[in-house]
Amino acid sequence: MPPLRDTSRSGDCPLIGLVLGDPGGIGPELIAKLLAEPATQESGHTVLVADPWLWEEGQRVAGTRLDLPAVESFAEARGHSTPVLMPIDSISREETRYGEANAAGGRSARQALTQCLDAAVRGDIDGICFGPLNKYAMKLGGMNYEDELGFFADYLGVDEYTCEFNTFGSIWTSRISSHIPLKDAPSYVTRERILKATRLTDKSLRLAGVVDPRIAVAAFNPHGGESGTCGREEIDTIAPAVEKAQAEGLTVSGPHPADTLFLKVRDGEYDAVVTMFHDQGQIAIKLLGFHEGVTVHGGLPIPITTPAHGTAYDIASSGKANLRPTHNAFKLACQMAASTRFSR
Amino acid sequence: MPPLRDTSRSGDCPLIGLVLGDPGGIGPELIAKLLAEPATQESGHTVLVADPWLWEEGQRVAGTRLDLPAVESFAEARGHSTPVLMPIDSISREETRYGEANAAGGRSARQALTQCLDAAVRGDIDGICFGPLNKYAMKLGGMNYEDELGFFADYLGVDEYTCEFNTFGSIWTSRISSHIPLKDAPSYVTRERILKATRLTDKSLRLAGVVDPRIAVAAFNPHGGESGTCGREEIDTIAPAVEKAQAEGLTVSGPHPADTLFLKVRDGEYDAVVTMFHDQGQIAIKLLGFHEGVTVHGGLPIPITTPAHGTAYDIASSGKANLRPTHNAFKLACQMAASTRFSR
Repeated sequence: MPPLRDTSRSGDCPLIGLVLGDPGGIGPELIAKLLAEPATQESGHTVLVADPWLWEEGQRVAGTRLDLPAVESFAEARGHSTPVLMPIDSISREETRYGEANAAGGRSARQALTQCLDAAVRGDIDGICFGPLNKYAMKLGGMNYEDELGFFADYLGVDEYTCEFNTFGSIWTSRISSHIPLKDAPSYVTRERILKATRLTDKSLRLAGVVDPRIAVAAFNPHGGESGTCGREEIDTIAPAVEKAQAEGLTVSGPHPADTLFLKVRDGEYDAVVTMFHDQGQIAIKLLGFHEGVTVHGGLPIPITTPAHGTAYDIASSGKANLRPTHNAFKLACQMAASTRFSR
Repeated sequence: MPPLRDTSRSGDCPLIGLVLGDPGGIGPELIAKLLAEPATQESGHTVLVADPWLWEEGQRVAGTRLDLPAVESFAEARGHSTPVLMPIDSISREETRYGEANAAGGRSARQALTQCLDAAVRGDIDGICFGPLNKYAMKLGGMNYEDELGFFADYLGVDEYTCEFNTFGSIWTSRISSHIPLKDAPSYVTRERILKATRLTDKSLRLAGVVDPRIAVAAFNPHGGESGTCGREEIDTIAPAVEKAQAEGLTVSGPHPADTLFLKVRDGEYDAVVTMFHDQGQIAIKLLGFHEGVTVHGGLPIPITTPAHGTAYDIASSGKANLRPTHNAFKLACQMAASTRFSR
């Protein structure tokens, strides 16, 4: 992880950068609802990076009313004890289409995120929380990575292992492969990736306040490969990686057949699951707690979180979007940013 | 499907063959509990194909007590209006190990199933319900197929499309690939397999009493392939297969991203999902209704059902096993057998 400038000089409370996400989705209205919550107001040290008109539009849809003082720099933002707005000019009202993935929307979200990433590199902010993006729009808008995490990691100069976590309540999932064609997933099942994902899972849960995380590693094949008669990844790769992680002192077990593992997770036997591909964990976590889910971009020098759901184009601008995941994403960014600052 | 001998001459009520499953698992105790239920007694026309000592042992563990009249043939069984026992000699008490997958257990289950399949070919029974098997034990015991369905289909001379269904309550899942290494799953994603699975899903749900089944076809890649940027199976293969099925008059839609699809299924938007690989459906269905789940071997000339769970070696012989899935499996075999006889 690249060294970051020590931000502790700027006060004890971490500063979180907020981004609206895709302008055509439910992000603007969710961030408006979030900022209107008394708890967000009181948590202080929050800077919204947004086009003023889009922030107003989000408030209109959300039915909220809050005047944020405008600031010209992140350093200035840190001096405020209530949320502030850093105005940008990323998209016009005319270019914005509710319910549609397009290049203008992707460019707008990318510009706001880039401002926050630049601030993170300078040590001016301690965490980022953003409204939902559409990956297709992000790619149309010039993000040449398989997903946001690849973009963040490259922008922040991270060459160590990163991985996306999904969490709600006390359950976390990480993955050794993510937004790739499923036919390519077998090539990601390596001892090194599993080991790095397991270590990062342990570290991230500790940052989020879990004292001795109990980690389960999922199998790759049906029924865990049925003793090698239905795939050999478990025997050749996953089991040896788990043994190595155990030898390093981590509380980890596996490979566990994926279809029954999540029942045990639901019942509290484990705190986190290292999954082998995107839908293995996502199918489970959405059924277990979709209405609360948060995505954490792990392995970066500062915590970056977002609600686990998408842009929900079908209900965008209706004001119906559920605030809970965004609320949880913001709370987790604050908690992890405080731990990260403390551990620096 | 091969023509079967008309069994209607033998009375109006379908005859179901019952098999204990793996002797070292929870099958014998579950079948003992099932047969002890008044509802099973009253449903009549049931023949248990089992070693008498193992049936007694199952009853001992279950804490039930029922004397089944012994019969020498399936034809004789049909004459009884209460459950009967067809004795076999497949395994000794000394060869049996609770909690262990071994060749003797696999051979025993295979022998009992084979007797039932022979009876099905002769038109002597109308459905089969069996206690949980262990696939590894079955392979050690001489079953040279990727799973039981392959064994059943070959034994019954079926050369048309077959597929395993999982169901509980009002939700069904089918799959276009099953017990194969996940790295081989992409080669199973063909228009023909999707179309055949969709047609068979429609047909099977109708046999189970669903009037106009609403079928959703799952995507293969994360987020449904993200408009082709994350895998092309959706565009090249799945969407055209769905369109063809729609043109045939089926109520079908898709491809739907798998991680959010099951939320809609849970909320009653669809009756069935055609999944692309084993764990895609199994992770979801076990979380949604593991305690009630049934597996149906679809596309065979008679319905064959089993509880969706495994042998649960860890609790075998404790008497703790939950009867509900076995109860549902038996009920569904009876219902589908009656519809199949009616439609012949």
